[in-house]
Amino acid sequence: MEGASDVAGVEGGRSLPDVRLVGFASRASLLMALAWIDACTDALGSEMIGIDEAIGRTLAAPFTSEQDWPTTDCAAVDGYAMRAAESEGAGDYNPLLLALMQAQSVAPLPPGSVSIATAGLPLPLGADAVLPFDAAQRNGAGMMEVLAPVAPGTGVNRRGCELRAGMEIVAGLKRLRPQDVAFIAATGTTRVAVVRRPRMRLVVARPKVVAGHDALTPMLSALVARDGGVVEISAPADAGRAALAQAVAGSVASADLVLVAGRSGAGMDDEAPLAIGDVGGRLDLHGIAMRPGGSAGLGWVGGVPGLLLPGAPLACLASYDMLAARAVRRLAGLHGTLPYHMVDAALDRKIVSAVGFVDLVRVRMADRRATPLGSAEEGGLAGAVRADGFVIVPEASEGYAPGSSVRVHLYEDQRGYDDQHGGPGA
Amino acid sequence: MEGASDVAGVEGGRSLPDVRLVGFASRASLLMALAWIDACTDALGSEMIGIDEAIGRTLAAPFTSEQDWPTTDCAAVDGYAMRAAESEGAGDYNPLLLALMQAQSVAPLPPGSVSIATAGLPLPLGADAVLPFDAAQRNGAGMMEVLAPVAPGTGVNRRGCELRAGMEIVAGLKRLRPQDVAFIAATGTTRVAVVRRPRMRLVVARPKVVAGHDALTPMLSALVARDGGVVEISAPADAGRAALAQAVAGSVASADLVLVAGRSGAGMDDEAPLAIGDVGGRLDLHGIAMRPGGSAGLGWVGGVPGLLLPGAPLACLASYDMLAARAVRRLAGLHGTLPYHMVDAALDRKIVSAVGFVDLVRVRMADRRATPLGSAEEGGLAGAVRADGFVIVPEASEGYAPGSSVRVHLYEDQRGYDDQHGGPGA
Repeated sequence: MEGASDVAGVEGGRSLPDVRLVGFASRASLLMALAWIDACTDALGSEMIGIDEAIGRTLAAPFTSEQDWPTTDCAAVDGYAMRAAESEGAGDYNPLLLALMQAQSVAPLPPGSVSIATAGLPLPLGADAVLPFDAAQRNGAGMMEVLAPVAPGTGVNRRGCELRAGMEIVAGLKRLRPQDVAFIAATGTTRVAVVRRPRMRLVVARPKVVAGHDALTPMLSALVARDGGVVEISAPADAGRAALAQAVAGSVASADLVLVAGRSGAGMDDEAPLAIGDVGGRLDLHGIAMRPGGSAGLGWVGGVPGLLLPGAPLACLASYDMLAARAVRRLAGLHGTLPYHMVDAALDRKIVSAVGFVDLVRVRMADRRATPLGSAEEGGLAGAVRADGFVIVPEASEGYAPGSSVRVHLYEDQRGYDDQHGGPGA
Repeated sequence: MEGASDVAGVEGGRSLPDVRLVGFASRASLLMALAWIDACTDALGSEMIGIDEAIGRTLAAPFTSEQDWPTTDCAAVDGYAMRAAESEGAGDYNPLLLALMQAQSVAPLPPGSVSIATAGLPLPLGADAVLPFDAAQRNGAGMMEVLAPVAPGTGVNRRGCELRAGMEIVAGLKRLRPQDVAFIAATGTTRVAVVRRPRMRLVVARPKVVAGHDALTPMLSALVARDGGVVEISAPADAGRAALAQAVAGSVASADLVLVAGRSGAGMDDEAPLAIGDVGGRLDLHGIAMRPGGSAGLGWVGGVPGLLLPGAPLACLASYDMLAARAVRRLAGLHGTLPYHMVDAALDRKIVSAVGFVDLVRVRMADRRATPLGSAEEGGLAGAVRADGFVIVPEASEGYAPGSSVRVHLYEDQRGYDDQHGGPGA
């Protein structure tokens, strides 16, 4: 019986049985697999990059401004910069006459005068308020009539009102949003330390008898990018075990994580665990109590963590999300939790689930009602295409009755949700 | 008084007053601005691209498979392919002897035999079930003992079970997710028609007196990319009105939308509306009843829609999200609605808002409680950095009392939310 006496991993004194033509005699719980990932992955080191390149990257350490921001009192609105005290008593029937300085500068404002203030720009020294344009009128010969009193500080952003020197404004290990980068850049910072982007070595191991397009590489590459990593793609390996081993070993030295997708299961062709062993790697766990994706494995290749994912597209997607995404995100310095938003929804049909397995059940959503699209393994990748999200049924659960409230992880992260609630001005 | 008699737009018989040193005498409602955008933008034409490049792009027309998928009956699990009828009566104490064919092929399975089946691969002709490995045992000399009966269809994905020929599986004008692209690729489709990516001409118009880093270009470029567009960056224009006009006009012919950010308001330096007029463009609306971002404008430049955004970073962010994002997304074939997920939260402090303005108030979130970070215009961009999201207060509202339930638009789209609810296996 070909291969049945081999062992999949022999490094470090551990070995796992070859499951081919036998099946998984036991499976690790998903929680055990997640604990393995948490023990074996942590944020990579940092690198300095230009602030303009930093959106989406993970800040390595908290950002603290070295100076107050704004660095000086600034106009918050367009209008006339003035001394508030000089507006005392002003009114439509008691216009107060002040001189209008033509120059817009931070040079001291002479007493008895106003100057034009531009929102966001520094106030002249001496000014402590900005009068709106419609609270004054010109009176020829460079003079203004002030028609309303203004309180000190009105229309002014005081020095340090956004941020005091030494205060932390962006936490470390936070993924930088567009506004974060714009603010950091505005304070004059041109380079920041970010967590190095995890480099994946991806080996798509296809069954020898399958031809046609490789559907997994673009999918996995996009998911890795979503999670802050970058794929160094290996050519798909659809030849024998030796070629597969070679693809797994190649360039491993420059990778932070190895992903092998395909040939992970109990079929005759499922030689990926053997190929990992052939190159001195090992699997610590193989077979996870999760559906789909239960033939995934976790181990080491060339000194870096290596994850084995099933090649069936739906199982590959599910096991990437539940296992590999956590590893990639942790290496990138991010939360390891699932990168999907969640909503609570009422089931409109029952979900049947096997005790002993975490089941992922795809659902369609309409109006906070969720319709299951079959059991955990039904529907293939088409089920994930039809779905708006998925429900995670814990190991101990037999499923949920119709009408139950369930938490749906939403696949879609680009959809507008305002439609159901009227527009923003409604 | 410099420029006070100019008009900002003179094309097509319309004109808007120069607001400089005067302020906005009247403002358009946000709803009117959104209606303008909806009337003036629509999905661009389509282009054919390789399926591997299609993730994140908007599919131009529904995807319909030309064939059943899978195209033939396939094994759903690893095991032995067989005729279910031949397992009738099998049991641990009544093993049925069948021949094990070594070849794994789709050639007809001889009666009285089984062959090894691999999940995802076609079944041999004649087989109608897959027996799990642990329901059979080898009996030397190429024979198997079947130890359990199996029903027809067990372990089989029937031809067409994922998708029937002619059925639509991905709707048109849908942004393609990783699984969508993987599925389409798996069916053998190598090229798809997607909506052309909107090309932005971005002119960052900075006040003449400001030096230092341009914080708006990276922020706006990232936001445009989020919404499916791509920025052709123009050099920031921080010289006079003529240089600004030249930057607005340059290359406009190849753009689908012009974004001018900065110098939009009522200050002396706010010459962007004039520069738009100088090059034959116009603003149809200037001044929106929205805070921050109220000096935004909407019009035309060189035959394409042109949006004028304020240069103050917070106002720029807010007006991009509320106005420009909608235009970019509509051109890209997407929903025009805000691209933020929403949660309902209880306010732990009141929000005060002006009637007559749509106010955007930034909030921090903790445990479904929202803390406002000041009024609509307070805090500058630092407020958006500290914030987890924002609340939209409609024009007619004076605000909300503490304890009110409000809908929060979440800035963050990459955070895991499982933390609050236990892990996936909990």
